[in-house]
Parts: sequence; C-alpha cells; structure tokens
Amino acid sequence: MTISSRFDTISPLDSRFYGGDPGLYAALHPYLSEEGRVRAQAKAEAALARALAEEGIAPRAAADAIARAADRVGVAEVYAEEARIGHDIRALVNRIAAQLEPDHARFVHLGATSMDIVDTANAWRYRECVERVVLPRLGTLVARLIALAEGEAETVQAGRTHGQHAVPITFGFAVAEYVSRLGGRMLLIRAAAHALPGKLSGAVGAYNAPALLAADPRALERRYLGLLGLRPASHATQIVEPEGWADLAHACTTALGVMANLADDMRHLQRTEIAEIAEGFVTQQVGSSTMPQKRNPVSFENVKSIWKAFVPRIVTSYLDQISEHQRDLTNSASQRFSGELLAATAYAATRLAGSLDGMRVDRERMRANLGMSRGNIVAEALYVLLAKHGHGEAHEAVRRLTFEAERSGRSPLELAAMDDDLKPLIATLSPEERRVLERPEEYRGLAAEVAREVAAGWRMKLAELLPE
Amino acid sequence: MTISSRFDTISPLDSRFYGGDPGLYAALHPYLSEEGRVRAQAKAEAALARALAEEGIAPRAAADAIARAADRVGVAEVYAEEARIGHDIRALVNRIAAQLEPDHARFVHLGATSMDIVDTANAWRYRECVERVVLPRLGTLVARLIALAEGEAETVQAGRTHGQHAVPITFGFAVAEYVSRLGGRMLLIRAAAHALPGKLSGAVGAYNAPALLAADPRALERRYLGLLGLRPASHATQIVEPEGWADLAHACTTALGVMANLADDMRHLQRTEIAEIAEGFVTQQVGSSTMPQKRNPVSFENVKSIWKAFVPRIVTSYLDQISEHQRDLTNSASQRFSGELLAATAYAATRLAGSLDGMRVDRERMRANLGMSRGNIVAEALYVLLAKHGHGEAHEAVRRLTFEAERSGRSPLELAAMDDDLKPLIATLSPEERRVLERPEEYRGLAAEVAREVAAGWRMKLAELLPE
Amino acid sequence: MTISSRFDTISPLDSRFYGGDPGLYAALHPYLSEEGRVRAQAKAEAALARALAEEGIAPRAAADAIARAADRVGVAEVYAEEARIGHDIRALVNRIAAQLEPDHARFVHLGATSMDIVDTANAWRYRECVERVVLPRLGTLVARLIALAEGEAETVQAGRTHGQHAVPITFGFAVAEYVSRLGGRMLLIRAAAHALPGKLSGAVGAYNAPALLAADPRALERRYLGLLGLRPASHATQIVEPEGWADLAHACTTALGVMANLADDMRHLQRTEIAEIAEGFVTQQVGSSTMPQKRNPVSFENVKSIWKAFVPRIVTSYLDQISEHQRDLTNSASQRFSGELLAATAYAATRLAGSLDGMRVDRERMRANLGMSRGNIVAEALYVLLAKHGHGEAHEAVRRLTFEAERSGRSPLELAAMDDDLKPLIATLSPEERRVLERPEEYRGLAAEVAREVAAGWRMKLAELLPE
Amino acid sequence: MTISSRFDTISPLDSRFYGGDPGLYAALHPYLSEEGRVRAQAKAEAALARALAEEGIAPRAAADAIARAADRVGVAEVYAEEARIGHDIRALVNRIAAQLEPDHARFVHLGATSMDIVDTANAWRYRECVERVVLPRLGTLVARLIALAEGEAETVQAGRTHGQHAVPITFGFAVAEYVSRLGGRMLLIRAAAHALPGKLSGAVGAYNAPALLAADPRALERRYLGLLGLRPASHATQIVEPEGWADLAHACTTALGVMANLADDMRHLQRTEIAEIAEGFVTQQVGSSTMPQKRNPVSFENVKSIWKAFVPRIVTSYLDQISEHQRDLTNSASQRFSGELLAATAYAATRLAGSLDGMRVDRERMRANLGMSRGNIVAEALYVLLAKHGHGEAHEAVRRLTFEAERSGRSPLELAAMDDDLKPLIATLSPEERRVLERPEEYRGLAAEVAREVAAGWRMKLAELLPE
Repeated sequence: MTISSRFDTISPLDSRFYGGDPGLYAALHPYLSEEGRVRAQAKAEAALARALAEEGIAPRAAADAIARAADRVGVAEVYAEEARIGHDIRALVNRIAAQLEPDHARFVHLGATSMDIVDTANAWRYRECVERVVLPRLGTLVARLIALAEGEAETVQAGRTHGQHAVPITFGFAVAEYVSRLGGRMLLIRAAAHALPGKLSGAVGAYNAPALLAADPRALERRYLGLLGLRPASHATQIVEPEGWADLAHACTTALGVMANLADDMRHLQRTEIAEIAEGFVTQQVGSSTMPQKRNPVSFENVKSIWKAFVPRIVTSYLDQISEHQRDLTNSASQRFSGELLAATAYAATRLAGSLDGMRVDRERMRANLGMSRGNIVAEALYVLLAKHGHGEAHEAVRRLTFEAERSGRSPLELAAMDDDLKPLIATLSPEERRVLERPEEYRGLAAEVAREVAAGWRMKLAELLPE
Repeated sequence: MTISSRFDTISPLDSRFYGGDPGLYAALHPYLSEEGRVRAQAKAEAALARALAEEGIAPRAAADAIARAADRVGVAEVYAEEARIGHDIRALVNRIAAQLEPDHARFVHLGATSMDIVDTANAWRYRECVERVVLPRLGTLVARLIALAEGEAETVQAGRTHGQHAVPITFGFAVAEYVSRLGGRMLLIRAAAHALPGKLSGAVGAYNAPALLAADPRALERRYLGLLGLRPASHATQIVEPEGWADLAHACTTALGVMANLADDMRHLQRTEIAEIAEGFVTQQVGSSTMPQKRNPVSFENVKSIWKAFVPRIVTSYLDQISEHQRDLTNSASQRFSGELLAATAYAATRLAGSLDGMRVDRERMRANLGMSRGNIVAEALYVLLAKHGHGEAHEAVRRLTFEAERSGRSPLELAAMDDDLKPLIATLSPEERRVLERPEEYRGLAAEVAREVAAGWRMKLAELLPE
Repeated sequence: MTISSRFDTISPLDSRFYGGDPGLYAALHPYLSEEGRVRAQAKAEAALARALAEEGIAPRAAADAIARAADRVGVAEVYAEEARIGHDIRALVNRIAAQLEPDHARFVHLGATSMDIVDTANAWRYRECVERVVLPRLGTLVARLIALAEGEAETVQAGRTHGQHAVPITFGFAVAEYVSRLGGRMLLIRAAAHALPGKLSGAVGAYNAPALLAADPRALERRYLGLLGLRPASHATQIVEPEGWADLAHACTTALGVMANLADDMRHLQRTEIAEIAEGFVTQQVGSSTMPQKRNPVSFENVKSIWKAFVPRIVTSYLDQISEHQRDLTNSASQRFSGELLAATAYAATRLAGSLDGMRVDRERMRANLGMSRGNIVAEALYVLLAKHGHGEAHEAVRRLTFEAERSGRSPLELAAMDDDLKPLIATLSPEERRVLERPEEYRGLAAEVAREVAAGWRMKLAELLPE
Repeated sequence: MTISSRFDTISPLDSRFYGGDPGLYAALHPYLSEEGRVRAQAKAEAALARALAEEGIAPRAAADAIARAADRVGVAEVYAEEARIGHDIRALVNRIAAQLEPDHARFVHLGATSMDIVDTANAWRYRECVERVVLPRLGTLVARLIALAEGEAETVQAGRTHGQHAVPITFGFAVAEYVSRLGGRMLLIRAAAHALPGKLSGAVGAYNAPALLAADPRALERRYLGLLGLRPASHATQIVEPEGWADLAHACTTALGVMANLADDMRHLQRTEIAEIAEGFVTQQVGSSTMPQKRNPVSFENVKSIWKAFVPRIVTSYLDQISEHQRDLTNSASQRFSGELLAATAYAATRLAGSLDGMRVDRERMRANLGMSRGNIVAEALYVLLAKHGHGEAHEAVRRLTFEAERSGRSPLELAAMDDDLKPLIATLSPEERRVLERPEEYRGLAAEVAREVAAGWRMKLAELLPE
C-alpha cells in the first residue's frame, strides 16, 4: 500500500485542486482518475465484444457475458495482474476472461491490439469529460461574464493601454471581451473533443488481425466505435493520429490563456491605487500570516498561476506527435498526463466563476479614476474632430497642445479654444461634438452597445452548445 | 548602414534557409520581409481611405491620392521618419501625408489607431502568405506522398512497433499515414488563416474615434476589412483577439510535427542495417569532411532540426494571449517574430518534397528485412486463428511457443503443428488461413487498399483546396 | 473524503510511478508528499522559535514547547483549519499555538511572514530530497554505467553518425559518454540544491517586522537558517530569489535529457535489424496484447517518455521568475508542482538503472554489424594516411574511390592498391598503418582507453559526492 | 542575390533590433553574423594547422601558409563552394587549400572531422561574444541599477504584495533586488561561457584519425584548443557534450527573466494611478498614432516582449541534448539559431540601461501613495509589538481591528488605543516603537541599509568580473 489519502500525493492537483474539492472530485473521477481510465478500457472491451457479435463473429451470449464481466472487473485486480505479467491491457483482458468459460473467454479482445482499446477509451472518456464537466463549468463562468457585461454595460471606466489611461470605455465592454474570447474557445474545445478518433485497425493499423475475422474489417471498426459515439480517422497506425489530442490540448491551453488574461485584468483593477473592484472576502478569512489588514486577490492569482503551470505542457503533446514507424512507445508515459490538462481547465473555470460571484464593482471609483485624466483623455477626440473639420496636421497640433497642457495644468480643449489657429475650427463643432470634448465620460463610442450585443449573441450560442 | 548581404545577418533563416534559396526568397519576400510588412501597412492605409470615401466621410479624390501615395512610399523613408519621431505607424502616416496636399492629408489614418492598421495588415499578409506560398508548397509535398503511396501500395515491408518487427504492412500504407495527417493539417492551416480577424474599432476597441466620423462605425469597419477580404471578430480591444494567430501557429506547428515524424521515419529506414530507402546524392557531393564514403540523410535531418527550433515557440503565442486591460504593449516585439513560423513551414515542406524526389526505395531490401522475422511475424495471426477456431487461451499458448521457437530455431507454426493440443485446430484452418501463416508477406490486412483509398481521397480534397 | 487510494488520483506520478513503487514512495514521501510539505513547514516554525530563543527574544521554554507542538501537528488538522480561515500557513500556526499556553503561543511565527516559512521549508526539503534520494539513485545508475564502460571497453562496435556506420568505436566508449555527461549533471544538481536560499526578512524582504524584535535581524535570520543548514541570498523580497529553484530545475531537466538520450541509444540498438543489445525479459512477461512474440524495450521507452512529459515544464520555472514588485502571488499554485520534477528525476534514474541490470550485450552481433561496412568504414583512415604520406588531394581521391567501390563491390583499399597514382603511396605505409586499413576493428583510436579513463575518473568523483 | 538590406530580412532581430542599431550591430557582427561564423571556423582551421606544426606533424611553413590563407578566405566564396559540393566545412577547407601548394594543402583540416572545427569555433565565438559584448552591456545596466539603488536608498515607497500595499520599503531597496539577481546571473553567464568545451577527437570522438597522426592525440587536442583559450570535456562523440551550451542558454534565459521582471515593475509604477516613475520622452516623440497625449513605457514593454519571444526557446537546447549514437544531425539547423539568444540578451540589456537613463523618479508621489494606506500599513507592526509585549493572540486581535478600521475610518492604532484589552499593552510601548506606529514611513526595517550594502557588494564583484 502506498497512497491512502490526498496528503500522500505529490501532485498538487491530487492533493489540493482536484483532491481538495469534493464537487470537482466527484465530477472528474469517472473520467480522469486511474480507476476511471481502467473502467473506460473495460467499457471498450465490452463494446468490442458487442461489435463482434453484431458482425456475426462472436455469439451474442459471449458478448453479453463479456459485458457483464467487464462491468465487474476492479482496478485493483487489474493492477495486481499487471504486476505479474508486465502488460496493462493484457492484464485487463485476463481479469475479464478469468470470469468466463473458455468458449466465451476466447472472444475477449479478439482481433484487437492494446491501442485499439486504449486510444478508443481515451477518446471516449476525454470527450465525455469535456461534455459533462469542462464545458458546463466554462459555461457557468461565461454566463456570469455575460450577466456582468450586461449589468455594467453603461458603467464608464478608463480604457487603458500601456497601463495608462487611453480613451473611455465601459466596464461591461471590458468584460464582454472575455465573453467573446472564452465563447470562441468553448466552440473550439467542443469541436476538438468531438473530433477525437478511435480505432480498431490492429497492431500496425492495416487491419491485419481484424481481416482474419471479418469480411469487412472496417465495418467492424465502425460498429465498435459507433457503440461509443466515435469515428475512425482516415488512417491509423498502432495508434490514432496524434493531432486529435494536440488540437484539444491547444483548445484547452488557449482557454486557460483567456482565463489568465481575465484574472490579470481583475488583479490589476484591485491594486491599492486603482481599487475599482474587490474580490469577495469572508469575515474569518486571513489574508496574510503577518499583515492582518490584507485582502488579496488570491483566486485571480491562483488562476494565473495554474496557467503558468500548464501552458508549457502543450509542447509535450507536440513531442508526442513523433512516433517512429508504426509506433515507438515513447508516448506511453507522457500521454498518461493528458487528463491533467482537462482537470486544470475545469478547475480554473470553477475557481474563476466563484471569484466573480463574490466580486464587488466600485462604480464611483471607476468614474473617479477616469476623472484623473479628464483633459488628456479626449486628446484623441480633439485631434479627430479637428481633422474632420479640415485641419491638415491635427495630430501634431494636438500632440504639442498636450505638452503645453502638462506644463500649464489646462486641458487641451481649453488651450485649443485659446489658440489662434484652432479657435475657428473649434467654433464649427456641433453641440454633440462639443459635449464629447467637455464630458469625457460621453466619449465612449459604442462601448455599451458592443457589451450588450456580445452578451446577447453569446448567450444564444451557448444555449445551443449547452442545452440543459 | 548595417546589413548589406545575407552574410551579415544573425538569423539562419535569413542567412541560409530563406536568404539562401532564391525561389523561396522571392515567394516569401512580399509577405514576410520587413519591406513586405510596411507595404502591407501602406496597403491597409489605402484601404482605409477608400472605405472612408465609400462611406461618404472623405472625398473620393482624397482616397485616390492616398492610395497612390501609399503605393509610392518606401520602407527606408518610413524607417528614417520612425528614427526621428519614435513611432512606426505615425512614421508611415507622415510619409504618406507628406506627398499630399493638406486637404487630402488630413484623411490619412483618420479614425484609426495604429493597431487597426497593424493587425489588419498582418491578417492580410499572413493569409496571403498561407494561400500563395505555404499551402501550395505543402500541396506539392503531399502530392508526392500521394504518388508514393500509390506507387508502393503493394510493396511489402515489416510493420514496426518499438523499433521492432510487428506484423507486415506495405510501404505505400506507411506513406499514406503522412498523406492523411498532412492533409488534415492543411485543412486546419487554411481554416485558421481565413479566420484571422482584422479591426477598425479604434484605440480601445469601442469605436470611440470612428463614432465621431461615421453614423455606423461598424459598417465602416466592414467596408475597410472587406476591401482586404477580411472580417472583424465579435470583439476587439486595441488589438484583435490573439486566439486567431494562436490557432494558426498551432496549425503550422503541428504541420511541422507531422513533417518531422515523416523525416524521422525516413532517416531510420536509411540506417546502415536497415537500408530500405536512400536519399538522393549527386556525384560531386561531399558527405563528410573526413569520412569520404558517407551518404547521409541530411535533408530529413534538416527538417527534423527545423522542427526542434520552432516547436517551442508556440509558447510565445500563448504568452501573447495575455495583454493587460485594453492592451499592454508586451506583445509588440514578440509578434514581430510570427512570420518566421510561416517561413519555416514553407521551407520545411519545400525541403522535404525535394528529398522525396530524389529518394530511392529498395523493394528487395524491404522484402529481405521482413524475412528476418519470418516465423515470429505471424505469431499474432496464429493466435487469432487459434482463438477464432475455438482455443480458449490462444494468446498464452502462442506466447509460450515463441519462447520455444527462439530456443529451437523452428517457427511457431511448425511447433504448433507438432503440439498435441494445437494440432487439431491447425488442421481445421482454411487454405487462405494457412497461406497467411506460411507466407508472412500475405499477412498484410488491408494495407494496400488503405494506401490507395487514402491517396485517392486526399487527392480530391487537395484539388478543392488548391484549385490551380 | 476524496482520494483514498492511488487509483483515485489523476496524476500518473501518483497512480503509477511514485504511487506504484513502494520503495520510491517511501523514499520520496517525507519530502515531496503534501504531508511532507506541511511537516517541513512545521519544522521551520520550530527552528524559528529556537532562533528567537537563541537570540534572546523568546524564552527557551517557549521554544521547546513550540518544537514539541510543531512535531505533533498533523496535516489533516492543518487542512481543516485552512478550510476555515482560508490561509495555509496561518492555519499551521494556529494548530501549533492551539497546543500551547498563551505566553508560549505568542512566539509562534513571531516576526515571520508566511514565505519565511514556505520558501525556507522548500529549500530544506528539496535539498534533502536531492541529497538523500535523487543523487543516490543517479549514483546507482552511473555506477552501473561505469561498470558497463569498463566491462565493454574492448568490445568493438560500429560508430554511427546520421544513423549510419562511421568509424569503429567500442561499446564501452559509447557508454562512457553517459558516465561523463550524467556525472557532470550530478555535480550541477548538487551545487544547485546546496545553493537554494532561505529567508527571514519579512513581508517585503526589508526586515520590517524582525527589526521590531531583534537588534540585528540579519543575525536572527542567519541563526534560523543555520539550524536548517541553509543561508540567505544577498537580497529577498517577500520571497527568495527565484533563480535558485530555476537553476535546480535546469540541472534536473538536463539530467533527464541525458537519460533520455541514453534510452534512445539503447532503444535503437535493439531494433530488429541491429539487435546489439536486449532488454531483460522474464518468462511470464507479456510484450503485446496481440503479438505474442514481442519483447519490447519498454523501460527505455518509458524513460524517454517521462522526459517528454517534463522537459517543457522548465518554462514554468522561468515564468515564475516574474513577480510584480515585492511579490504578486501568481507563483503560488505553480510552485506547488516543483516537487514533481525531483520525483521524475529520481524515478527515471531508478527505472534506467533497473533496465541496465537486465540488459544483455551481444558482442558477436556488434562485430557482425561492423563487418557490414568493412571496406568503407576505413575510408577515413585511407584518406588521412594518404594525406599524411604526401597526397595533396587525398579526401577527394578517396571520395571518388568509394563511388567506384560501390559499383564494383571492391573495397576502397583494394582499389587504391590498383590505382596508378595511389599505389606508390600505399606502398610507403607502415605495417601498423596497413593493419588499420585491413582490419577495421583495429581502427578504433583511443576508444578503449577513453572508456577506462572516463570510468575511473568519475568513479573517484562520485565517491566524493556520495561518500556512504 | 537575395538579401541586400535589413528590410529584406524576416527576422526582427535582423531588421530592427540588431540590424537597426549600428552600435550593437558592430559589436555583435564579428561573433554572431554568418560571416563571423565562417571567420571563426577559418580561425579554428588555422589553429589546427598551428597545433599540427607544434606537435611535429606538419611543417611550420605549412601552418603559416594555412593561417594566411584562412585569414584571406571570404564567406561568399565558401558559400559558392558549398553550393557546388553540398558540405559547408569541406567548402571552407577547399577554399583554404585552393590558395596553397599541394604539399601545404594536404595539412588543412588533417585529422579533423567537421565538428572539431564547428563546435570549437562556436565555443570560441560564443565565449568571446559573452566576454566582449554581453557581459559589458549587462554590466552597464547593473552599474546604473547600483547608482539608482544608492541614490534612492532613503526614498520611502509602499512595499507591495498581491499588487496591494503591504509594508513600507525604499525605492532603492526595490532596485537592489535587481542588482542582486542580475549580478548573480552575470556570474553564471560568465562561468557557463568559460566552460564551453572544444574538441579534436575526430568523427566519433574516439580519436580514430588523430591517432594515425599523433603519438598522443590528446596532447594534440589540448594544443589546438589551448591556442583558442579552450579545453576539452572528459568525453566527446562527433560533437561536444551539449550540456555546455544548454547551461549558457539557461544562464542567458534567466538573465532575460530578471530583466523582464524589472521591466514589469517599472511598467506598473508608471500606471496612470500610480505614476511613481516615468520613462524618458523626447519632445518630437509620438506616443500613439491616434492619442496625441500618450507617453508610454515602450522600452520596458519591449524588453518584456523580447523575453516572451526567447524564453520558450530553451526547450530547443534541451531537444538538442538528444543525438542518436555518436551523433545524428538533427541538431544541425537548430543550433544555428543559438547566437540569437546572445544577441537578444545583449539587446535587452542595452535597451533597459537606456530606459533607466532617462527615467524620472517622483519621490513625492511615492510618499503620497504610501500615505493612502497610512493606518493599515502598520497593522503588521501593531500585531508584532502587541505579541512582543505579551498578547497571546495578537494577529487575530489586529485582524479584527482592521475590519473595524475599514468601517469606521479610524486607524487600527487609534482603535487599539481605545480598546480595553489592548490599551494597557499600547501603554508599554517604547518611544521608538510608538514612532513606527504613528509614522508608517519609519516602518521600513533595514530597507536603506540593504540597498546600500547590496549596491556596494555587487560593485566590488562586478569590478572583478569586468576589470576594464
């Protein structure tokens, strides 16, 4: 006996992030735990037996018996058998066969190579995990972002580039960015999960053994995979084309990237000097072991940090694209880590949705911060309007005004109104144009409209994606 | 003056792989060189002026004048202006405007932020580069693989797993793997290139400045992008959503991975002891500076090595997903490197296609190597047939026979025919089944059929993808 | 309750590689398990109390009581407290303090920030893990390589470049490469582990709180760290300089790289057509679930695959170099994964040493393979000797001979002896020189000497490194 | 002809960062340009000839002639020859030999394999580049940081963790972090550059060819390398042990990481709401093509972005650790990119030093920002002093006060002075202790002392490292 609790594990996923969250644990265990892995393989063996029966190769009674035996087999006994014979799938086959009479037993795994089971079971469990856990949890996150985008569609905020005030936006518009980007990633994740291929083409992909059993081995393959909701690719070797997983890994990794960007934005908006939002905090919570006053953006930091841990791992999926000839086995151990990425994606979405739940938005502070750059923030509007109304070098003229504004403390608009060259043009501005220059908070373009439209558009798309 | 020839450059792309191949240089220069970059930006400025005119904001004469000026502007003058003012796009704008009368000049760049030009110009030039260079060169490579898959569809070869003989395939089947995988990557590259979004939504994405000019700023955006064959995404900040490029980078990186795998297979088949293929070699070529006899698989090695140089760089694209608020500028320098990946993909495809051209296939050696494992290579077939005909533990029975075979020098089939338990089952085999056991080269399943079907299927798909 | 056995975990480290090897589990658990992590932190709290006492800040009795309480505290209770208050180190402090009377309790953690404990405890447990597990297991591996290098110092083998025969070496020489490279990595790992700094400089590194307690806060820091065999760096913020861990991660990652290279070489030498070595295999072992004859290099493949899983993760350590100001917390979750790299290094060394144990070397096959290139393999020697004896263009002359040799089936030496130009020079060769040309197995330079010297040199160095 | 100016290149290093900075271009060209590469190889050939002469194998006149010819050979003629024969080093050898009479020509490259030249030339030029360009430029940067740390040693600033005010530091202390970390990296870079090995052990590392020429081939190797200031490692194959370069790549990559962290800190201190420092800006400079008022931290952003482009590339160096047997050639193209990392490191150091030059520090704003958290920022001090003076649960008591402080607007100290439990303890505080609580700017521990000591300590170490 080795591990008997989560405190015995080395991986922080196991000890804290998955092992420390009973809800996430229950959701992911059927697909990503080692037991889930073996159970999915047993399920694939049962499907194979069923397909052999449906194609007239095995008696129906054998298929039924194999399905029952596969359902009963336990991960511990499979591991014990593997310890004896040194092969994991043969161990599973032996433990299924051991429950059967010989004339049924001979149909277990018949015609299949190990990877016909392993790759197919992985395709099934990763797709199920995406459909049942990853996408719903991302969906919850995006739903909260949609609500926030709509609720704050009119909340004026300083737009920022280079960490500095640029021109005004609304906070809902800023949030809508993440609705759009995360929504797009959800579509990609779903497409990639559904494109994961399975296989039943034997030891080198050429249907050598299946062709000894079936008149049309590819019909047998389609039957087998169809029972699990899967399809073959146009070619396989001992293994399925590795690009299927790489595409899903890319989709998840980039979804983590969008979440990390959101987390960064929320972190920075909580800086002491900015303080436009605040992460929820409960009364008994401790922020620092030594600084009793601290209220820190720990959930947002955590999501960024999870991204740091997982973003480089895509390279492993790319290294696993290379397998010599019909397969070397150097992708065997490395692919066992694949499920960790799905777990991390589900975890980050959950953590982030929770953070947003408790988050407070300080609309007054947003308005106050915007006011800091009152004069300068409409420099762009001033330049564009001057150009629109006929100034030939408006950008340069306003650029110089901003230097003067810095020295004098006056706003560029005030200075323009006093400038002999610019005065006449200022006089030609329409009332709406003047208002934009005088009240920067009005200079927000379509921020509110875009916020609402992005929210509405993605609400509909997600309703299709996640019908329940 | 700094660089005046390719020997002055640091990047081996510039000094050797792109700079050393006049054909590739001519093909890529319009899109990926620094001059190509600036020219694409000038083209975007011209399209913007045209869109302003079509939306009734600028006079048509101004748009025409701007288009002519944009076409004439030179990269050197833009760089000189940038050296003076410290801003690259404003430098371009100044150099266009300098050619114009003030009443035209004021419409140059009007309403746009730099990234409305930069991101849009990049989307245009990367898509063009993909369509006109990357995909055609991958297409040439895949066409050669298709021809090889068909030409060698019946050439029997040992299928290999773990670097060891497994069961027979045909060489055409082995090649068909790469037709399928590379074909799939071409579809992905094309889709990603066509999904690259452009933008004209201003400094923070909320159409602040455009809304001062146009009643419907999004119509103006669609007009501008439409002139370049592009579309906006559902949201943008100062920059387009970074996932568009990340998806294209992933598609190219995985295409490089498939090419690297192909290169590895071809390298190993040239090992002295295997020698099933040989890279072309011309009479005056030197293989080694000290070993005069050497004929090395240098082109295949080169492709693998290019992959090593580029595969980790995807992480840069992922790091560039994170930009604070409406944009920090920490993706500015890093994104300038993006074009290198397209160049590397085009280069690798070209080099690999060239290698395949000169490659010799030694069918006799393939057959001879297969013969080395004559008895053992049909152990699987023996097990499957015994099980099919009623043996309850056929895998274990044959596994033991292979140990005995190793000791005795006899084949498993001979031993089975002498074994009291197995003899009766052997007697029940059909003539076709016996033939497979006696002539391993017949035990190749659907290898030839799959080779031909994959070749035919992808020939059709590529004809759609690359019509000319 | 979540995880109750290794089959409930997601990480394959936990379910198979660490959790599946009771010996490795027992060795690593004290340092790398979550329990080990918390125990190391408790140990650091005890050391802090001791240091406070030795500097006259706390009474000795308080330090003694704190040390006893820290020793008794359990990981489960700490986690339960963390669930209540949301802070891991304060939870530990509370659980220690709860066992004490208030006048002792107030000295627990006094003057420290959480990271004074966390970073120091990590430095201690990573260094201990390296000293007690990682280096000894690498040492066992290198010791086997040393024995192999010496035992096979004279075993002639084809030297290979580009996968093709180059000039002869001995197998011991080939193995000596890995003695040298792995030996070098061991020195680097040790140096990096011993350079890991600890700290006691408070919340932002400026000794704010410690300066309220101690006249010389840096003396207090040295005292605290000295009790754990550690030292401070020249500067710290809330955290120690991250380069310490990055250097250790680099050392371990490159050690994995050397092991992966060794594994690759051993895999390729087992190819069916080469067959110069064979991985050990026990009679009941199954090589394939469908191909009963298979004997695969699974251990070597496994080590290569572990490398694939871990090599990209160094990038996480580099991302963790960046922490805003005196610290953002985006390195918190990601650094929890650090221990996995140490576990993987120890595991790979163990697995590889085991593989070498059972490995068989086929000296006859090595000699036979070398014979395949009999004539060509001395082309280099022929060119060098011709040049040495006065030929002005010997490389080109011999290069042409090798083309002729290929056509005619004769060796370059035979052809040279028949060539009018070369004949006179061939006649001037010394008997030793002729022997090298006639018996390629003699043309092995200093292979045997180097093998023995590398082995002897590193045996001495390792004896210093691992005294017991 | 392909590239004729920097605008024809694809790499932004070539077009902008190296090719756009004449000073950096001149400094790096001799080592990192393609011409520099070939010249270094010619220099190695000359050293080889000299060593052959010194060991009595070649006449001194031949060595002299070869040295002169090597000095005269041009990169263009070498490339033309390579185009003819397909081998770069043989091309160089031919171009040297073509200038010589046959009896001298035969000693060119005699006994060497290509990699004896290539690896040795790379070790020489990378070490020289580090010594003469990379370290001096890092030294300039660190010297400025030292001056800044000393000049601002007493400038009080809010220490920040989680982006929020923690406890006070001084700005000089914050800068000292980077003196310490970058100083450490400089030592590592220097050590790694000086550890780069060369070789002269022939085609597979066993001294096969050299042993035909020299009685003691290792003495010949030491002679050759000694002429270039290099040494051999304990083993080589066709190539030097790849860990030498990997160690240097790690050292440079982590130096870039420290610079990126510094750049991030400086970026954030320039946020509109923080504004504690400002990047230099010249009057004619344009900050934005549309927002005339913008003054952006573009140099700091640029350095962060360069880091993004280069940090993942370390993985290429790790992939290049793996080379089959005595060498496959899949590290050939990838290693040609190595010099780019040295160029990027030198460039980033130069850019960052320039940014610091023009940077303005706003001491008033630092003090004002610190004042924002006036009460809370000493919560830690209050807790520590209460505990020191006997409170058993001081952290929890002060934690609750901070909640009350938030509600009431009073400082925790005021509230403590009014609290029945805490009042007596507050009364026992010494005047110094009270002062810390009342004037947060006094609660800065050893910040100023550490700033000065770090500065002084590293000034001495760098004086040793960079004597001139």
